[in-house]
Amino acid sequence: MTTSLGGSEMARTIRADVTARAAVLTQRGITPTLAVVTATDDESTAWYVRSIAGSASRTGIHCDTVALSPDAPTDTIHAALVELSNNPGVHGIILQTPLPDGTDLSVLRDAIAPEKDVDGANPVSLGRLMAGQPAFAPATAQAVIDLVEYHDIELKGRTAAVVGRSLVVGTPVAHMLVQRNATVTVCHRHTPDLAGTTRHADIVVVAVGVPGLISQEHIAQGSTVIDVGTTATDDGRLLGDVDADALIGHAGGLTPVPGGVGPVTTALLLANTVTAAERANIQDQFLTAKLIDSPVPA
Amino acid sequence: MTTSLGGSEMARTIRADVTARAAVLTQRGITPTLAVVTATDDESTAWYVRSIAGSASRTGIHCDTVALSPDAPTDTIHAALVELSNNPGVHGIILQTPLPDGTDLSVLRDAIAPEKDVDGANPVSLGRLMAGQPAFAPATAQAVIDLVEYHDIELKGRTAAVVGRSLVVGTPVAHMLVQRNATVTVCHRHTPDLAGTTRHADIVVVAVGVPGLISQEHIAQGSTVIDVGTTATDDGRLLGDVDADALIGHAGGLTPVPGGVGPVTTALLLANTVTAAERANIQDQFLTAKLIDSPVPA
Repeated sequence: MTTSLGGSEMARTIRADVTARAAVLTQRGITPTLAVVTATDDESTAWYVRSIAGSASRTGIHCDTVALSPDAPTDTIHAALVELSNNPGVHGIILQTPLPDGTDLSVLRDAIAPEKDVDGANPVSLGRLMAGQPAFAPATAQAVIDLVEYHDIELKGRTAAVVGRSLVVGTPVAHMLVQRNATVTVCHRHTPDLAGTTRHADIVVVAVGVPGLISQEHIAQGSTVIDVGTTATDDGRLLGDVDADALIGHAGGLTPVPGGVGPVTTALLLANTVTAAERANIQDQFLTAKLIDSPVPA
Repeated sequence: MTTSLGGSEMARTIRADVTARAAVLTQRGITPTLAVVTATDDESTAWYVRSIAGSASRTGIHCDTVALSPDAPTDTIHAALVELSNNPGVHGIILQTPLPDGTDLSVLRDAIAPEKDVDGANPVSLGRLMAGQPAFAPATAQAVIDLVEYHDIELKGRTAAVVGRSLVVGTPVAHMLVQRNATVTVCHRHTPDLAGTTRHADIVVVAVGVPGLISQEHIAQGSTVIDVGTTATDDGRLLGDVDADALIGHAGGLTPVPGGVGPVTTALLLANTVTAAERANIQDQFLTAKLIDSPVPA
């Protein structure tokens, strides 16, 4: 019996909370605003951005899509990110990949103000996350953790394998699992015996982008499998990294693709944007209070 | 046959290089300067700081010890770090633990300018390290990696276990091993079967601070063991986390304590300080060149 670890119900709960908090801000005259920067004519990216914008709008968040040319140089994208970082009317910033060939992603990530970095793209956010300081984690990584906890899967004292070591999923997920007292093995293309390694884990998180990479031989009976892979097919389907058919009846729990990590990720981007707007508002009130408290300068 | 993976020879090589580079800087009128901030009357800390200062002096680096009161509040320590960060005559800054009870370490780490953060204490340095951007790693973590590579121990495609998940050793070491294509398991106090886990690893790095924690049952025959533990005894000896007697003849290689990771760490702090001074000098030359190139302001 394999439990389907769906994310749609959890995403609805998050969005309801976001809607209520966005309404409070709007009443105070603040429109929580998310800016999404793109520089591609990739159709699936356009679809994804429209879906974020739609979700945002339904929860009371304004989504401002900054669509740059697919051949925009690094300088142009950088300038857009700096402007949005300095714009007090913008609370969250997402830099959407893919970016034009030759773009210096490292320079661009640095340009997203950490307090608006709702998808945890700036290395400063990652460092603060690792150090246990307040920071936005990459939304997909946070979605993995939140989804596991939502489904009451114990992490403390359990073993976990993370397949993939990207900066946006594998690396932060591994760290967040360790922080929650799991014993974590990070696997990747150079792992000598992938199936033998993942088969020792109570929880397996897969974030590689290779459809069907993980099959029954990789998973111990009863283990939990979180599939972060999303590969789009030409006929418009979305494929995970896990051969789900092979795991049904074998794994203890499995996230569906689509409908697992994905909807939670999108909901968290909105939640982070509202959090950023709330913090900016508190900061403003604090500064105003300080100004009122301060003696008039001579 | 167990190879002793000593660090003294490597440290000597690093110091010779540091000495040559420091001499070049001194000839240009720049004294490479390392500031060590302490706020404790702990005798072993005082001993360690004197040993760094001695090493620094022998390589041509000026070491400035800023000894604050053992009951200095966070504000005072913070102010010292900010001043050193802004002082163009200081190139490297180390904040030495232990700090007074109740100190907010998080606030202090943030106050060390990343370009002077020669012991990788600021989360910004950690984030940049994780993202593959130029940054100083925590010197102990870097020493583990450098010592392994110095002794020609292959990492790519090998399995490694890191015991301990501290921000200064376990966490960055694990990440740096993954970056070098090892498959890495992070273990800690909640690991259900420590010996069973470490026994699967080709390389075991131990950084816990519990003398004798790792014994023969934890290590597969022929594996490499890196002992980062240093617990000082009342009679002035230094104990590692590994029961060395039990591993001689069993492990393939083992770092001695003392004389393994420790001397490399100290040498790297000096190397990082010279690197920081060189970068500051290049930056100055660049700015000077820009000023000369620029038209005279109207």
